[in-house]
Amino acid sequence: MIHFESDYTEGAHPRILEKLVSTNMEQTKGYGEDPYCEHARELIKKACGNINLEVHFLVGGTQTNTTVISSVLRPHQGVISANTGHINCHETGAIEATGHKVLPLVSEDGKITAQQVREYYDEHWADSSHEHVVQPGMVYISHPTENGTTYQKDELVKLYNLCKELELPLFIDGARLGYALASEGNDLSLEDIAANCDVFYIGGTKVGALFGEAVVITNNSIKKDFRYHIKLRGGMLAKGRLLGLQFETLFTNNLYEEISEHAVKLAMRIREAFEKNGYSFLYDSKTNQQFPILPIRLLEYLGEKYSYNFWTKIDETHHAVRFCTSWATKEENVEALLVDIEEFHQSN
Amino acid sequence: MIHFESDYTEGAHPRILEKLVSTNMEQTKGYGEDPYCEHARELIKKACGNINLEVHFLVGGTQTNTTVISSVLRPHQGVISANTGHINCHETGAIEATGHKVLPLVSEDGKITAQQVREYYDEHWADSSHEHVVQPGMVYISHPTENGTTYQKDELVKLYNLCKELELPLFIDGARLGYALASEGNDLSLEDIAANCDVFYIGGTKVGALFGEAVVITNNSIKKDFRYHIKLRGGMLAKGRLLGLQFETLFTNNLYEEISEHAVKLAMRIREAFEKNGYSFLYDSKTNQQFPILPIRLLEYLGEKYSYNFWTKIDETHHAVRFCTSWATKEENVEALLVDIEEFHQSN
Amino acid sequence: MIHFESDYTEGAHPRILEKLVSTNMEQTKGYGEDPYCEHARELIKKACGNINLEVHFLVGGTQTNTTVISSVLRPHQGVISANTGHINCHETGAIEATGHKVLPLVSEDGKITAQQVREYYDEHWADSSHEHVVQPGMVYISHPTENGTTYQKDELVKLYNLCKELELPLFIDGARLGYALASEGNDLSLEDIAANCDVFYIGGTKVGALFGEAVVITNNSIKKDFRYHIKLRGGMLAKGRLLGLQFETLFTNNLYEEISEHAVKLAMRIREAFEKNGYSFLYDSKTNQQFPILPIRLLEYLGEKYSYNFWTKIDETHHAVRFCTSWATKEENVEALLVDIEEFHQSN
Amino acid sequence: MIHFESDYTEGAHPRILEKLVSTNMEQTKGYGEDPYCEHARELIKKACGNINLEVHFLVGGTQTNTTVISSVLRPHQGVISANTGHINCHETGAIEATGHKVLPLVSEDGKITAQQVREYYDEHWADSSHEHVVQPGMVYISHPTENGTTYQKDELVKLYNLCKELELPLFIDGARLGYALASEGNDLSLEDIAANCDVFYIGGTKVGALFGEAVVITNNSIKKDFRYHIKLRGGMLAKGRLLGLQFETLFTNNLYEEISEHAVKLAMRIREAFEKNGYSFLYDSKTNQQFPILPIRLLEYLGEKYSYNFWTKIDETHHAVRFCTSWATKEENVEALLVDIEEFHQSN
Repeated sequence: MIHFESDYTEGAHPRILEKLVSTNMEQTKGYGEDPYCEHARELIKKACGNINLEVHFLVGGTQTNTTVISSVLRPHQGVISANTGHINCHETGAIEATGHKVLPLVSEDGKITAQQVREYYDEHWADSSHEHVVQPGMVYISHPTENGTTYQKDELVKLYNLCKELELPLFIDGARLGYALASEGNDLSLEDIAANCDVFYIGGTKVGALFGEAVVITNNSIKKDFRYHIKLRGGMLAKGRLLGLQFETLFTNNLYEEISEHAVKLAMRIREAFEKNGYSFLYDSKTNQQFPILPIRLLEYLGEKYSYNFWTKIDETHHAVRFCTSWATKEENVEALLVDIEEFHQSN
Repeated sequence: MIHFESDYTEGAHPRILEKLVSTNMEQTKGYGEDPYCEHARELIKKACGNINLEVHFLVGGTQTNTTVISSVLRPHQGVISANTGHINCHETGAIEATGHKVLPLVSEDGKITAQQVREYYDEHWADSSHEHVVQPGMVYISHPTENGTTYQKDELVKLYNLCKELELPLFIDGARLGYALASEGNDLSLEDIAANCDVFYIGGTKVGALFGEAVVITNNSIKKDFRYHIKLRGGMLAKGRLLGLQFETLFTNNLYEEISEHAVKLAMRIREAFEKNGYSFLYDSKTNQQFPILPIRLLEYLGEKYSYNFWTKIDETHHAVRFCTSWATKEENVEALLVDIEEFHQSN
Repeated sequence: MIHFESDYTEGAHPRILEKLVSTNMEQTKGYGEDPYCEHARELIKKACGNINLEVHFLVGGTQTNTTVISSVLRPHQGVISANTGHINCHETGAIEATGHKVLPLVSEDGKITAQQVREYYDEHWADSSHEHVVQPGMVYISHPTENGTTYQKDELVKLYNLCKELELPLFIDGARLGYALASEGNDLSLEDIAANCDVFYIGGTKVGALFGEAVVITNNSIKKDFRYHIKLRGGMLAKGRLLGLQFETLFTNNLYEEISEHAVKLAMRIREAFEKNGYSFLYDSKTNQQFPILPIRLLEYLGEKYSYNFWTKIDETHHAVRFCTSWATKEENVEALLVDIEEFHQSN
Repeated sequence: MIHFESDYTEGAHPRILEKLVSTNMEQTKGYGEDPYCEHARELIKKACGNINLEVHFLVGGTQTNTTVISSVLRPHQGVISANTGHINCHETGAIEATGHKVLPLVSEDGKITAQQVREYYDEHWADSSHEHVVQPGMVYISHPTENGTTYQKDELVKLYNLCKELELPLFIDGARLGYALASEGNDLSLEDIAANCDVFYIGGTKVGALFGEAVVITNNSIKKDFRYHIKLRGGMLAKGRLLGLQFETLFTNNLYEEISEHAVKLAMRIREAFEKNGYSFLYDSKTNQQFPILPIRLLEYLGEKYSYNFWTKIDETHHAVRFCTSWATKEENVEALLVDIEEFHQSN
């Protein structure tokens, strides 16, 4: 079985493992205060344009979202998110477990707009009994979104300008950030992202690392005491250097970009193969996740050799599914898939 | 500088790294549902006597304590712990952050007794306004404790029998469990431990793994929906197999025991060296942490080559400090330390 | 200005004040353990059919909802509610503050159906990664709803049977329960309600009391330790007898029914007056809240003498608004309103 | 039976009931936005010296403590309190339920000193792994304390100056504030109290009201959005005017002072009667609670006519108990008690 159902099926990029092996018996301080973390922080700062920012390393995405959001909000505040946002759907209520409501905005493609945020905000404050309603306290977006879609620079700038105007810190979940940066038509650099939010994270788990998310904080009030929050939420890794070593490797010799581009290139080939055969897509993704709408017969045919994710039922004979590539996807596996798609069409 | 200040200064046992490297490009399911986790669970079950239990893997200790405790308690209940317990002192209020008070019992050595628990329980229920007071809902102990001390079998059996009688689930924090099992005078096997509590964990982070704690649940009501709790508290590792691979390795060919014994043997040599020179100890530890009370002059002398942890001031000229060994401690480093202790005494 | 905008604009029914005055200098135990609470509990038990139930008194609705819901759910569970439910909209995230997500079902009229609950439940458990999603743990409905609509007996029985089948405790918010019981077409007695849920409350604040909600628990597992939960959520009134005295009065000589009927009768007259003039309603309410859709010109005309609640904009010339009656509404005020409605129509 | 066991055994001062009765059928806005609340706020502001402060009304003490503390702290912070503090002992973990640890300082008499706070603070920040420990975020004291003891002006000023220096907001629980203000030797006015803390409350429940606590906030950052916090914690009374009416009455014609003085005067007579007969006291209280250490034989003798609170066992033949007076205590009942104490001594 060849796996296309997620982007965390393999271990880590070989250079990361080499780094872990070669430093294994060194003795360092724990909890992220070692020289490798320090160096990784420097590399990330540089990649973000050397602005005044702080970098912290956590293990996983849910933990990171929970730690950041609960560190920002006051008890009576909630976090605005697309209704499809990861924090609203797939974290078992981790945000609510810290006492905060997720305030969902309806989204077709996973993105939310400045206009939507403004309307929600205005409606809240126009309500004469607004004290009976959760106060919007920050904005959460994913880039790319859970649907593989991405923000353009003008969209992000507009959203962030609004957030600053309304004093709603903007947090970008970048669990798959590399794949957005490598996507066709992308006009956002890492520097642009750092300049247009209060806090974001650079995903490692799905982009070449064994695990790890690098939180980048530009807003001074969020920086304050952030290490307490990491510890409090169970995210402070004892052997913190494991995170430093991985991000140091990813941000050396452009590895993060290189492996992201690899994944996106292969995803685009899958996309084109489906397009060529006349299939449409549930979402217009230029990143490593593709959501084609396919006949069940084709899915059954492919399902013998390839695994993918069922996403939603479209009609009696069609399902939307997800195919993922990653830094680890082998070109030959994608080739095989393309051949089989052709095969199916010629014999049907 | 040779580090004795903690037991998480190095990476992982080489066999663990080999395993990670050799399986790196395999594709598996995530979130702990892969064959390596499955196999590791089987090995741990076997080591625990094949009783009816469930095994889950989490990343770190604070996360594990929080997940277990919050999954057991009802909102009005607290967890009984030694006042020196890790959850009461060094987790930035992670337990309280889930809504629960830690109910501390005064302990000199880090242990608590069945007698103390019974008194606390009786006092609670004798209070005519007990509904105004946090209800004791479970008992937490560490084995070994944060002070390096350990429970004897009769103590544990007595405590657990009481807990069953009072319907207070007993949870054992085994972050350093291997070192207790390998300690001189220990009469508790892993089977005994599994048979004498409702839930415990086998620490990996401090005993040879890169990270990882294996939670073993014997109480059926705690088993129910435990995976939800892991996810909810941010502890469900995407590439869960990393945990399975590590525990599989630790529980193959007795590696967990072997490396624990190594650490304890070296700790005992340090202990003996101090004892021989007439020093006493803050706690009577037979495990990998030693807490000698030493003259500041000796500490300064040793401090040039060795790092240790300051623990507490005893008087104007003496401090209690902590020396840790671990699975990774090199025999030659301990030899060097012993020579330097002798050296100091001969020249003073 | 004559107030129709809410049902808590006055104090309490005079008989309640008389009771408070006549018992004022008596000395009783606090915290709900006095003879008046005891007697009130007996009266409520009797009114509920003398089944095996427990009665507790709390001060207000948000407090009651929070206390009940947080006492029932485990940390990974959420509460199913209509999206329009009070707990989802107007409690400043009080439920989330106890760690739980409100799981909203789309509702046009404020009610939810057994069918909707089953679909939500089935969808949850059919999801192969259901552990990443909040587990439905109980069901919350309001009767009457926030929109003034009510459940018929067959609807409630069907919903409760399903809840029992799925092991989802059913909680009925009865902040305005009296007005449902007194509504035209109602076929649910208090006994029926007690027999068809796990826990509900009988609203006092909006039905004749100064304040107070009587929680009735039929499910044994919810009864356990409930007083701890009341104290924990800040709801245990020191002079608890104030609650007992009020509910004793309300449940003596059918006062609760009598004053509810008064309010509903007047609401129906308002309803008919609008109907007669051809206006439609946002919701089909037979209870004390009426939601007519009215021309802005009429609203401006009435607004000079009467206050009402703006509800929502329908189009450029029409708004939906809320008129409330209560136990305290004066017949003469309703008469005056009816005259003015007629007046407006004759002169326009 | 004559009750001396608590200060909430009766209803409310007659003038309060008269006020409730005379205004009963008026229609006002809810949730504390009515003219009575507004007037009561003005009266309290004036009594506090007309400084820049905000007044909010809540129903009970635990609710008030929870609302204030959770509105001040960040998630990683705890509240410093005497170990005997109400929040640490008698609120069923309400503070922890909002996610925060109570940080207890050992106190013999219920008070804490500036010196103790400084030491705790310094110890926290001196710890190199302070991020693993709950950060002190505010200070809570009771005045009078749960033991009836009170702060002198110089003690409070010193404590508050330190709190300002360390940026730890100071919160004074004044559930029995009136009795401290009326106590012998008191040198603190209400103005002094308002000037020497960030937030405090004026207790109504135990000082003449049916219920109600008036929170006075002087610190601007605590004022922000405080009404959201009240609603969120279930403390926003629908018929908020009930609170306004009560505090308006208490702060008219010095009623609050007058009834407090009454209680304290009677408590002093009880104290003197015990003193005269050679008994000592567990705490040196000049307020309405007295904690004599008495022979069990005397307690049994008095127990036939009077109820009191058992406090603690002193030895085989002596218990410490609590006698409370209040605004409602009848002089004749105290006289009777004094006679019986004498009686016992003459016949023994």
